[in-house]
Amino acid sequence: MKLGLDSSESHEFTSGKLSLIYHISWRYSCLCPPPDTHVTVVSGVQCTRHLSSAAAPQPAVQNVKDPKTGIVLINMGGPGTIDEVHDYLLKIMTDRDMIQLPVQSQLGPYIARRRTPEVQKKYSEIGGGSPILKWTKRQGELLCEKLDFLSPETAPHKYYVAFRYANPLTDVTLEEMEKDGLERAVLFSQYPQYCCSTTGSSFNAIYKYYKDRKVPPGIKWSIIDRWSTHPLLAKTIAERIRTELKEFPESIKKDVIIMFTAHSIPLKVVNRGDAYPSEVGATVQLVMKELGYCNPYSLVWQSKVGPLPWLGPFTDESLKGYVKQGKKNFILVPVAFVNEHIETLHELDIEYCHDLGKELGVENIRRAAAPNDHPIFIDGLTDIVLNHLKSGPRISPKFLTRCPHCTNTRCEMSKSWFAQLCSQQ
Amino acid sequence: MKLGLDSSESHEFTSGKLSLIYHISWRYSCLCPPPDTHVTVVSGVQCTRHLSSAAAPQPAVQNVKDPKTGIVLINMGGPGTIDEVHDYLLKIMTDRDMIQLPVQSQLGPYIARRRTPEVQKKYSEIGGGSPILKWTKRQGELLCEKLDFLSPETAPHKYYVAFRYANPLTDVTLEEMEKDGLERAVLFSQYPQYCCSTTGSSFNAIYKYYKDRKVPPGIKWSIIDRWSTHPLLAKTIAERIRTELKEFPESIKKDVIIMFTAHSIPLKVVNRGDAYPSEVGATVQLVMKELGYCNPYSLVWQSKVGPLPWLGPFTDESLKGYVKQGKKNFILVPVAFVNEHIETLHELDIEYCHDLGKELGVENIRRAAAPNDHPIFIDGLTDIVLNHLKSGPRISPKFLTRCPHCTNTRCEMSKSWFAQLCSQQ
Repeated sequence: MKLGLDSSESHEFTSGKLSLIYHISWRYSCLCPPPDTHVTVVSGVQCTRHLSSAAAPQPAVQNVKDPKTGIVLINMGGPGTIDEVHDYLLKIMTDRDMIQLPVQSQLGPYIARRRTPEVQKKYSEIGGGSPILKWTKRQGELLCEKLDFLSPETAPHKYYVAFRYANPLTDVTLEEMEKDGLERAVLFSQYPQYCCSTTGSSFNAIYKYYKDRKVPPGIKWSIIDRWSTHPLLAKTIAERIRTELKEFPESIKKDVIIMFTAHSIPLKVVNRGDAYPSEVGATVQLVMKELGYCNPYSLVWQSKVGPLPWLGPFTDESLKGYVKQGKKNFILVPVAFVNEHIETLHELDIEYCHDLGKELGVENIRRAAAPNDHPIFIDGLTDIVLNHLKSGPRISPKFLTRCPHCTNTRCEMSKSWFAQLCSQQ
Repeated sequence: MKLGLDSSESHEFTSGKLSLIYHISWRYSCLCPPPDTHVTVVSGVQCTRHLSSAAAPQPAVQNVKDPKTGIVLINMGGPGTIDEVHDYLLKIMTDRDMIQLPVQSQLGPYIARRRTPEVQKKYSEIGGGSPILKWTKRQGELLCEKLDFLSPETAPHKYYVAFRYANPLTDVTLEEMEKDGLERAVLFSQYPQYCCSTTGSSFNAIYKYYKDRKVPPGIKWSIIDRWSTHPLLAKTIAERIRTELKEFPESIKKDVIIMFTAHSIPLKVVNRGDAYPSEVGATVQLVMKELGYCNPYSLVWQSKVGPLPWLGPFTDESLKGYVKQGKKNFILVPVAFVNEHIETLHELDIEYCHDLGKELGVENIRRAAAPNDHPIFIDGLTDIVLNHLKSGPRISPKFLTRCPHCTNTRCEMSKSWFAQLCSQQ
């Protein structure tokens, strides 16, 4: 079968996933691929992939002499290699802030073991590991360069990566930070929209680390916990969408449905009062405002697991629903995660854009890249930190307040501790 | 018992609801009350009421000679008198866009009959009728005055009120409009956030009216279907909150929890892909941005009815949850309805602020006024219409696209019809 490709990256494929995997492996073997190349596979379905994301340019190890301000980039992380998948899943499955299971100390490890082969297969299909660390390092590097230039009074700035479930783990990073003799540390969540299961869990882990330890003296701590309405986040996502829209034939461009897709959460978390759905909604509306409401759009939710009810409608089912209505052209837009990761590269690209798209007979389905190292996004991160350093409150009243139906005693203790931490100095 | 009051409107009450009702009746009997007076009843609980809303200054009947542009203000409406309650409920209960019941043609009228006395009692407790019409007329009057001044080329402007369940009903208004020989008609939803059950239902009613009738020739039609992110909406709500915050003692001001409250919807509507929760979330985040995230806040949902699961957390339950956490000071903020109505004046003011607040032993609970005729809000409405008249698309791609899991054939037909209507002339 002859398959057309839309860029200079033209190759021939036989068909289906095997060839796709080969292609991914090839991309991964490149030394210096351009960071944002789009590869499009057409086989009845037209599908965009952002494979280059996994091959983000590796910054030099940041070697900052006597850093004054530390910017701690907080995220969930992902396994860097296939061998790390089990440990990663085990950490998720035993994190009660993320998932609450009955007899979790036994059931968690059991589920982690049972799911490891399936998840390893997925990681092997996106090149053998998660690109989150590579992108986070690149973002940190570019952010600190800009901060050093724009805010010499708080320079030198050094970024630290604190992942919740993969290396570099939060504990190890905090230990490293202590050695650097910082004057100021900004705990900067890399989730634009706050969710108790993600940002909340990471902050609870920082609290847990210091609970039985002395906080290093002399550091002025502060927190950036959410930034769903930052205009440059909306501008970045809008730019990512514009890039994809350009690839559609002029005659059908206006009919393309923009499907914003975010990780779903269980309805019991929604009903507890978690701010996540509302903050994701805000980002979506601001992106469409930025785009002048040029196209139809929808917010849908992906990655549900387990038998309990989760917030819908789900991404795959919504795609089916639209196809039933006669719609045939789509852009999927990750809106709640700033880096490529397994759920963009596998779930969106392979499972939905390629496999499901083909099954449903869609005409064109593309996926907008995550913010990654888009210059507008780096400007956004810089603006957020700059404003925070210059005039932001060190901790927000919202962060300090629990959900109306919070039953997590860790949140109670953690929030009190952070209130104290951020009032010192 | 001696009860303190916070404004020049000081009176003595014995206690509880009876006296409160008396007070409301008194307010209603005033001829010219200031439009935004706040009356505060203290009896252990401190509670703000916006009784004046029902006594909004009645504009003179708009007598516009040869109007050129009609602005159709679309809303659900409310019974103007106790006698209209049954008809109002009957219209709601038999509207399949609003509620889907089994054997609705029988069950709907049965529920309407059964609920009439209880709902009549509530309306009698807020003064004998809904103030939605009074506020809508005032908004229309002020809006058209501004439009005439700012956009002489589309003047004279005339507003029309098109309610879904109460007088003036949509059909009657459309008939009236036809006589006026307009050049242009803007169908302007007064729900800032779109929901299929509210804005959607009204637009389906307009479609139904014209389905078997000739559309009057010579009118250029267009639609404003949603405006959740308009900056002046956020500014208005922020101002309403600032007004209430000023009433709290300085020492506790920063601990006041701002509870944004919107009408809930059934989870099956959420899961169908209705945009409402996401758009309400956007308004909330933009209001807090406007306020500089000065206080803790939360988005909660009110007015659930029936046994099926609805979107939570619920306003009353959330209040209980916060009180359990030791919180004692609150402002309730209606965020999805622009006028005082039964759910602000009764549910929020009487049931939650007064009765529940007292039961829970809160220290201070106040309720922010709806936008009503706040000058910033009128500027907002004007800006929305001006931009729409000058450069807006006549119909938005989002409006024309159904929810991913829409099963309502009326929506399909209605949207096709509006696409055609708004492409004529």
